Amino acid sequence: MPAPFDLNVTALAGGVGAARFLRGLVRVIEPAHLCVIVNTGDDDEFFGLHVSPDLDTITYTLAGAIDQNKGWGLTQETFRCLEALGRYYPETWFGLGDADLATHLFRTQQLRQGKSLSEVTTAIARAWDVRATLLPMSNDSVRTIVHTEAGTLPFQAYFVKGRGEGQVEKVDFRGISTASPAPGVCEAIRNADLLILPPSNPIVSIGPILALPGVREALQETLAPVVAISPLVAGKPIKGPADRLLSGLSIEVSVVGVADLYQDFLDVFVIDTQDASQYARLQQRGLTVITTDTIMTDIEKSVALARVVVEHGQKRRQTRTE
Amino acid sequence: MPAPFDLNVTALAGGVGAARFLRGLVRVIEPAHLCVIVNTGDDDEFFGLHVSPDLDTITYTLAGAIDQNKGWGLTQETFRCLEALGRYYPETWFGLGDADLATHLFRTQQLRQGKSLSEVTTAIARAWDVRATLLPMSNDSVRTIVHTEAGTLPFQAYFVKGRGEGQVEKVDFRGISTASPAPGVCEAIRNADLLILPPSNPIVSIGPILALPGVREALQETLAPVVAISPLVAGKPIKGPADRLLSGLSIEVSVVGVADLYQDFLDVFVIDTQDASQYARLQQRGLTVITTDTIMTDIEKSVALARVVVEHGQKRRQTRTE
Repeated sequence: MPAPFDLNVTALAGGVGAARFLRGLVRVIEPAHLCVIVNTGDDDEFFGLHVSPDLDTITYTLAGAIDQNKGWGLTQETFRCLEALGRYYPETWFGLGDADLATHLFRTQQLRQGKSLSEVTTAIARAWDVRATLLPMSNDSVRTIVHTEAGTLPFQAYFVKGRGEGQVEKVDFRGISTASPAPGVCEAIRNADLLILPPSNPIVSIGPILALPGVREALQETLAPVVAISPLVAGKPIKGPADRLLSGLSIEVSVVGVADLYQDFLDVFVIDTQDASQYARLQQRGLTVITTDTIMTDIEKSVALARVVVEHGQKRRQTRTE
Repeated sequence: MPAPFDLNVTALAGGVGAARFLRGLVRVIEPAHLCVIVNTGDDDEFFGLHVSPDLDTITYTLAGAIDQNKGWGLTQETFRCLEALGRYYPETWFGLGDADLATHLFRTQQLRQGKSLSEVTTAIARAWDVRATLLPMSNDSVRTIVHTEAGTLPFQAYFVKGRGEGQVEKVDFRGISTASPAPGVCEAIRNADLLILPPSNPIVSIGPILALPGVREALQETLAPVVAISPLVAGKPIKGPADRLLSGLSIEVSVVGVADLYQDFLDVFVIDTQDASQYARLQQRGLTVITTDTIMTDIEKSVALARVVVEHGQKRRQTRTE
């Protein structure tokens, strides 16, 4: 059965929220016509291994191997090595499963042998038979650092170890000024038929990608419509610290606050019906606003949302080219 | 209960055979009075991790955590990560258990951070509450290479992957000419009250240690008696390729062949009762020969053998100092 929609889509993605959307998207477009540019600001080193949480979440989800309950890690995972690491390390708060470790071992060894993160990402996706193209946002090290009243922490330490607690004062992307987008990133934005920002954290998932030199410009200049799905539902994130990050940075914790972060390139904004009260304010900003059910509790809901997004994206595209 | 014998012992060790003996030795001497110099010629890199098979076998055995059936690896081990590595690597023949991986991850990270193998070995032994001092034979890379008619292979590839098959033509220790014994190795030999060579492979386990500059001289010059236990029983190894290695190198496959490899420093040779027919030939070489049951099928047998070895070593020592 051919995919319902025939167009080339490029998505900018964080982890769990984006993955939930993308699993539906690859049912409504041909997976090989999808390119996902993935945040690597959350990458970190644990026990000497290079871990790319968002890349892994996207890969495992598209491979159908994700732990559906947790949203990250592999299904039917065990944690024997992590437990054993406790003998050698004082801290083992980052959940590395035994099977998952194979990915980190492979990535780390390939990087040490001089491969780029792009090359390793392609190899990992291929090993999992993922047909979409996955691109890390950059092959250079960019680290999302969260400054809270309690201290300055890399993102994983803030979010996983610290459970996202503490008043956020500032977020910065260490290394961003000297980092370049990975090969193909800007081209994938400029050459797509449709750009999608799935419901990812605008500050720490989409934020680092947009902060890379040239990415924002490519989004502004692309002829393709740009559609975003709000990561907030009823003014709150489904999961994660988006609300705390937004308020810490004095950004309105609402779909309007999110839209404003994308205002220079966004065409269509998909919000949950629970946020319909913000419809008028968003329209005043010149956006095409779609309200629908955005909570993806199962694969059917992911497919339904993807269908709405692609339909409206395509409609907008046709309007433009007419 | 104090240990039956009060003396400082230094042992030269390979893997499984040595470990079986040492588990008994630490019941007859005070563990803190034992120093074990361990072969690292079998070390290799798998999936980017530095694996030291003999060091791990000794550590896990002295910690009481070894898989008694296999003789290597941890008890109640799982192999989920190794299985998952099969997705990324064509070959996964080296048995790395999930809990065992923690040791390799820790060692690799510490080495990358500039720690010496000696330092890491001490840290690992401490993490397992091993009270004996464990020294890698060297902090420099030495790799045992087995040349067979079928090709030239690192030891693990020859023994584990190739199952020790193929006529052996030559064995060499790559890097040995520029390697130094690790700090404390020669001192531990010179300052011990008793030197023991447990039943380890004389070519690939004890061989690399003896080939390090200064080690053989230290064994020749030490005032302490040197006692070896034959790794051959009824002219054959209990396990491993000692017979094939000896015959490949044109060395007699017998306790006499083994004794000849140690003739310049050996004082007492402990052989199995099944090899009693060689008693006279060994005595003619000026050795004190002890025949006893050397097959250590359980911990009691290991203790009994250790007791014989230490008793005779101590007797020889007293004879010397009288």
